[in-house]
Amino acid sequence: MTLPAIGISLGDPGGVGPEIILKAFSEPVSLPEARYIIFGARPILEEAAQAIGLRPDFVAWEGRELPSGPGLFFRDVGRPPAGLAMGKASAGNGEASFLFFRAAVEMARAGLIQAVVTAPISKTSWRLAGLGWRGHTEYLESLFPGAIMTFWSGELRVALLSHHLPLREALERVKKGTLLDFFRRLDHSLGRTKSGVREFLVAGLNPHAGEGGILGTEEDDEIGPAVEDARKEGISASGPFPPDTVFLKAFGRPDKMIIALYHDQGLIGFKLEAFETGVNATLGMPFIRTSPDHGTAYDIAGRGTADPRSLVAAIRMAVELS
Amino acid sequence: MTLPAIGISLGDPGGVGPEIILKAFSEPVSLPEARYIIFGARPILEEAAQAIGLRPDFVAWEGRELPSGPGLFFRDVGRPPAGLAMGKASAGNGEASFLFFRAAVEMARAGLIQAVVTAPISKTSWRLAGLGWRGHTEYLESLFPGAIMTFWSGELRVALLSHHLPLREALERVKKGTLLDFFRRLDHSLGRTKSGVREFLVAGLNPHAGEGGILGTEEDDEIGPAVEDARKEGISASGPFPPDTVFLKAFGRPDKMIIALYHDQGLIGFKLEAFETGVNATLGMPFIRTSPDHGTAYDIAGRGTADPRSLVAAIRMAVELS
Repeated sequence: MTLPAIGISLGDPGGVGPEIILKAFSEPVSLPEARYIIFGARPILEEAAQAIGLRPDFVAWEGRELPSGPGLFFRDVGRPPAGLAMGKASAGNGEASFLFFRAAVEMARAGLIQAVVTAPISKTSWRLAGLGWRGHTEYLESLFPGAIMTFWSGELRVALLSHHLPLREALERVKKGTLLDFFRRLDHSLGRTKSGVREFLVAGLNPHAGEGGILGTEEDDEIGPAVEDARKEGISASGPFPPDTVFLKAFGRPDKMIIALYHDQGLIGFKLEAFETGVNATLGMPFIRTSPDHGTAYDIAGRGTADPRSLVAAIRMAVELS
Repeated sequence: MTLPAIGISLGDPGGVGPEIILKAFSEPVSLPEARYIIFGARPILEEAAQAIGLRPDFVAWEGRELPSGPGLFFRDVGRPPAGLAMGKASAGNGEASFLFFRAAVEMARAGLIQAVVTAPISKTSWRLAGLGWRGHTEYLESLFPGAIMTFWSGELRVALLSHHLPLREALERVKKGTLLDFFRRLDHSLGRTKSGVREFLVAGLNPHAGEGGILGTEEDDEIGPAVEDARKEGISASGPFPPDTVFLKAFGRPDKMIIALYHDQGLIGFKLEAFETGVNATLGMPFIRTSPDHGTAYDIAGRGTADPRSLVAAIRMAVELS
């Protein structure tokens, strides 16, 4: 079996991305055997390496075909744009981080790598650079409308039916057909991986999952029938469960994934349990994308104090899901 | 200063209520000095005492005026109704638990006691008994429409703008005037207590609290202006904050209370942190009501294994808030 090829984009040059990537590939961290390719610009990585005194051995790689053995490669995306800024957002930072990310995505679309791990970008930098996407996920959704956001920590796994939508609009997505399609895509996407997830626990929309229709009707009219149809197709799903207890049902059970019907239903519980230590994985695409669940941390960038653990978890998960 | 008088209703006779009350008033538990009055029926308490071998000394009390010193009293509400059932819901259990609760509430309304602590009732028993309220809170709301549900644990304090409403209806409550009125009532109610809460952290409604209008408008149109007006009136409030991070802001800070805009926004985080160990307190009434955050636990009732800690916390909080 060929070793998976995992692309890693450097993230915002003014944030902690370059630093945590260097740390992830230095002792004493031990990552699984794979072919890792950093997408970035050499001067940015050199500067970070000098600042923190770590110098992992990256092999420059410019061709299309990767060597088949394990290794650590560097793909120079080109001369960094002007206007880079340390520890803050800038148009140059936005442009650079977009170029690194896009290069990795293009290679994944071409089937040359199986997963993309994204170090943090700044949404402000992207906006300053005049980019038309809020962030990584929105760019991926523009290419793959069936992309699904999922969140993974030691104790919880959560998938979001919708994410960056006003709550009122998110409620409109809670329809039987939309849900059934979502279950199918998620099941298909996870079925190709070693994720360990064996059952979807579907949250209700209303308090106490509607309590038999007294506190809302979506459970009886939309969610329940969608779960039933999914089961008939052989998808292991149950619910709808009361939103405030479904997290306890799934807690510490790696075989259960919570299906949250809107952004905060999933993320209030997830962030409380795993703030900035979890992994964000985008599924439902021809390749996997994972990222640490934290931002650029401009306030500590360049000081050598950033914690690489969430990135390391994201890299491990990319290998596992590939 | 007179010692506070705290009424405690026995709860569903077939649940763990009688047992955890007996345990709460037995060694080694040490409750603060107060005048405690259990509202129930003598045979039910006797039976529970015999089953678990605990026999605290309850002084029968039938008059209106309580002795001024500390003590543990028993108010016999009358012969228990027929059809009591152990370990399951029944019409008799519903009728009995309602009578105990109502007797305590009546005495609180008359100003003879300052707080009511409610041991768990069964909503099914109440329904079987033909009662027109879902539970304690709905009965209290029928008497006091300004009642406010709050939740307290070691790490978090949460108040709910609305609770048992379909999510779509709950969204309609997110209006500037409704919010401002809510802040005033909650501030007034807490101001009379030793709760320690000094600031309200108000959650937004939409992902990322609307992100400047891109992900929803309620933050700019309703919530923000309500917070601003509250501050002008001297109420310490801030926000709106992103719903998925406001919990981290308040975590472990006893001076902060999260204002959640709908049931699950508040309870997903609260239950994940404090499942069945928290305290539920109803404010916004002329007296305080607290209860443990768990149910009748029919499956373990009568076995002597029920954990009284959440009830003990509810009793302590009733004394503290009185």
